[in-house]
Amino acid sequence: MQNVPLTVPSMLEHAETYFSKKFVVSRTHSGIHRLSYAEIGQRTRRLASILNKLGVKKGDKVGTLAWNHHRHLEAYFGIPGMGGVLHTINIRLSPNHIAYIINHAEDRVLLIDPDIVPLVEKVRDELTTVKAFIIMTDDNELPQTTLFPVYHYEQLLSEGDSDFQFIKPDDENEPAGMCYTSATTGNPKGVVYSHRGIVLHTMALGLADSAAVSESDVTLAIVPMFHANAWGLPFASVWFGSTQVLPGPQFTPQLIAEMIEREKVTLTAGVPTIWLGLLRILEQGNYDTRSLRAILCGGSAAPKALIKAFETKHRIPFIHAYGMTETSPLVVLSRLKSYQHDFSDDEKLEIRAKQGYIVPGVEMKVVGKDGEIQWNGEEMGELLLRGPWIADEYYRDERSKDAFKDGWLHTGDVVTVDEEGAVKIVDRTKDVIKSGGEWISSVDLENALMAHEAVFEAAVVAVPHAKWQERPVACVVLKDAFKNKVSKEELLDFITPQFAKWWIPDDVIFMDEIPKNSVGKFLKRALRDQFKEWEEKQSS
Amino acid sequence: MQNVPLTVPSMLEHAETYFSKKFVVSRTHSGIHRLSYAEIGQRTRRLASILNKLGVKKGDKVGTLAWNHHRHLEAYFGIPGMGGVLHTINIRLSPNHIAYIINHAEDRVLLIDPDIVPLVEKVRDELTTVKAFIIMTDDNELPQTTLFPVYHYEQLLSEGDSDFQFIKPDDENEPAGMCYTSATTGNPKGVVYSHRGIVLHTMALGLADSAAVSESDVTLAIVPMFHANAWGLPFASVWFGSTQVLPGPQFTPQLIAEMIEREKVTLTAGVPTIWLGLLRILEQGNYDTRSLRAILCGGSAAPKALIKAFETKHRIPFIHAYGMTETSPLVVLSRLKSYQHDFSDDEKLEIRAKQGYIVPGVEMKVVGKDGEIQWNGEEMGELLLRGPWIADEYYRDERSKDAFKDGWLHTGDVVTVDEEGAVKIVDRTKDVIKSGGEWISSVDLENALMAHEAVFEAAVVAVPHAKWQERPVACVVLKDAFKNKVSKEELLDFITPQFAKWWIPDDVIFMDEIPKNSVGKFLKRALRDQFKEWEEKQSS
Repeated sequence: MQNVPLTVPSMLEHAETYFSKKFVVSRTHSGIHRLSYAEIGQRTRRLASILNKLGVKKGDKVGTLAWNHHRHLEAYFGIPGMGGVLHTINIRLSPNHIAYIINHAEDRVLLIDPDIVPLVEKVRDELTTVKAFIIMTDDNELPQTTLFPVYHYEQLLSEGDSDFQFIKPDDENEPAGMCYTSATTGNPKGVVYSHRGIVLHTMALGLADSAAVSESDVTLAIVPMFHANAWGLPFASVWFGSTQVLPGPQFTPQLIAEMIEREKVTLTAGVPTIWLGLLRILEQGNYDTRSLRAILCGGSAAPKALIKAFETKHRIPFIHAYGMTETSPLVVLSRLKSYQHDFSDDEKLEIRAKQGYIVPGVEMKVVGKDGEIQWNGEEMGELLLRGPWIADEYYRDERSKDAFKDGWLHTGDVVTVDEEGAVKIVDRTKDVIKSGGEWISSVDLENALMAHEAVFEAAVVAVPHAKWQERPVACVVLKDAFKNKVSKEELLDFITPQFAKWWIPDDVIFMDEIPKNSVGKFLKRALRDQFKEWEEKQSS
Repeated sequence: MQNVPLTVPSMLEHAETYFSKKFVVSRTHSGIHRLSYAEIGQRTRRLASILNKLGVKKGDKVGTLAWNHHRHLEAYFGIPGMGGVLHTINIRLSPNHIAYIINHAEDRVLLIDPDIVPLVEKVRDELTTVKAFIIMTDDNELPQTTLFPVYHYEQLLSEGDSDFQFIKPDDENEPAGMCYTSATTGNPKGVVYSHRGIVLHTMALGLADSAAVSESDVTLAIVPMFHANAWGLPFASVWFGSTQVLPGPQFTPQLIAEMIEREKVTLTAGVPTIWLGLLRILEQGNYDTRSLRAILCGGSAAPKALIKAFETKHRIPFIHAYGMTETSPLVVLSRLKSYQHDFSDDEKLEIRAKQGYIVPGVEMKVVGKDGEIQWNGEEMGELLLRGPWIADEYYRDERSKDAFKDGWLHTGDVVTVDEEGAVKIVDRTKDVIKSGGEWISSVDLENALMAHEAVFEAAVVAVPHAKWQERPVACVVLKDAFKNKVSKEELLDFITPQFAKWWIPDDVIFMDEIPKNSVGKFLKRALRDQFKEWEEKQSS
């Protein structure tokens, strides 16, 4: 067979050639822009040519700090299309972490949205490798800024070459992109995406039993383009010729509903919070969402009620999926098998609420306390992943050795697998409670506690225990109306029927608030610290 | 990204793990067999283990002479799954050619269907590399045969190891399969398929806008498994978990209709002749074909009337596709673009009757008399192809240099490309008529002539011409009822409105029969020879 490498710019060339009339609907700070793939192609070539002139060399990183819009899409192809590496920067990180990753990646040039300029100004003096700042503004003039040297994106493009020939690597394993993922402690960790990895992952998104991205689709990536390449949707939409709606900065659930209706969106992707917001809006307003053939939901587990509401009330298929920055990200996706279609609605919901099946091309292994687990939907183990779009290291990072061992990515996610092979995330390895050689899912206990009408929130953490190694203790915040009116015993009695006896927490500690991190997740580490002497205190 | 090679056995492992309950419906000489992918997996491992014991080494070729059934499917995975190369042999070739390709490929072992044993016996003495013959029979006893040493497939399997661990290459470019394609003159030419090529081609078959092979499909490959891997359908059905119907030896259109109805086939694939036969049967009998979501048609151009009959009368979407042994084979596939759906039925038929668009992952270039052609649906040129599932040579064959140049496969097919990028095959390079520096399609003229009620068949060939280099001359066979009743002028007048003046043949030569090759194609070479002095005869 011919030695033809899989490359990112080839995907755009395909769209320029076969989908030149299809277009991108891009929302920026000045409003809606419509650009055909022919125009996007020419603008991307201009971008690639000027990056060349700004001194970006093969293998150099170019950072983006931007929302989902057409200029960011041009960067997705223009940077790898001139030999550079597209480094999408999560603008929600702390300024410290942003400065760290720009320096650690050694970004040469930054492409910045106008409203993110102040953030970059804040860290400007710490940046050691950046040679130029390009502001992606709609305005004719650059905003006032202390950044220097600073360029106007459109002005640079007007000086660029719309016939620039993309530079494709001979070796498809060369880097095309990178993204940092936040760590529990310490600095974010960098993941490098190769041309090969991106192209194969894009193919996986086009498979009929995966996201089935198609020319007839109108896609809407709500998931930010700075989060694992917006789950690959911009690449897939380009390659397969979908009309692509990019929602721009600071959108609301209402705006999403309006865009779905106006642009007849068929496929959209985002985290559960987004869909909770959309659901509320759909219940208030009168939006036509019949064009939607699927909502793709990942990032964290979607509550069953959410899935049910979309599927039964709004007749919108809700596809639960799982992945991480390290996995490009799509690796697991929930679909009913053909012989499950005549199951009862409840049984189907049970399946749909799992994360689902490994996508073709990726392999998994689930390792519990005694080696590989039984696939019985009960036994728990850590999910290990292997495949051509799974990272093999963190970029120049000592922490690689903790996550990448024997050719497998150790995800840190604890899962069960049912007889059919469907994966269900039940916990994080660091949060699971190891009691007497068995594993207890903190998340399952929390969900059970939070189903009680009096409970506002609940976190279950391990405390050290002399006999059982670890035991679960529940930290519970009661709703205001129930403060001091519900006992520990009542809560434990409430959940007892659902679990084996030894799963039931040894204690319930009422508190006013559960400590959380910047994105609202429970800081269980802090709770474990707080209660590490719980056992001694019991006996004293 | 992890360095994980794309390999053929991984696809079967995926099916064993996630689709163990799905099954293969296999028709052999004794009847219908139903085997789950779990069983197919174990049997394939047994096969791989016994090939090992029979002395087949890494890189050795193992030939198959077999119809479409489960044992052939086991060979598809078992041979590459132990490091061997699956060599599917076209049993319709002449015995001479069959002996040639077995020796040329250096097959170590042959897997043979019982009804093909006599064919192999005929050439047995010429075979120089074969060390063992395995007969894939349902019977307990081997048939009477002069082949030696000869083995019983099922008996060997019973001695095999159902836990055999597949051997996967570290380098995905290693060969996994091969297939010979007949040449116009001389011996057949061998094409080697790599693990990488097969896996990427299989992914392409799963894309939503391609064949969209899915777990919910029931596939039926009518195209033989000895023709370019049955267009990859057995690989795709396994990887994506489709139920797979394999029609076995000597089937009839009636049998196909029965299988579609009984097994609720959703996707089937074959050449136009098959669909012409099925159409006739559907018009006679009362078959329920509503399960069919698509007929995939390739091998040669499908007549518009055929496409129309399936789509309008039987409401079965008919997907026209194009490929060749050298291209794995899928490279071009006809689909309407989303904005073409509200075209008139005639316009849509016009588009659907073209071969269609290049599949993502493959590139094309069309080179005419003055370099790359205009995409205007009129200019003609040779189709050149490039991509990771396109061959880069013929196996140990001097003729490679004619077809593989500058990294492109020169297909020998003359095409037009319309403004949308849709490819239409109009001729073979050797048959196109080069008149005054312009190209004339012999096929277009033939089709126009054959539309006349009096014409039974027509072949248009080039004759050498002093002024114009070449001119077209039509060879026409009239229907019996019209013999001697239709003039040359009448036929030319009939087609004149459809063509530019200089396209009209200079002569019509009536004959009793047009010479044909073994598969029924016009032997235009013989006609060109016969009429090479046509011009001189005109002036004399």
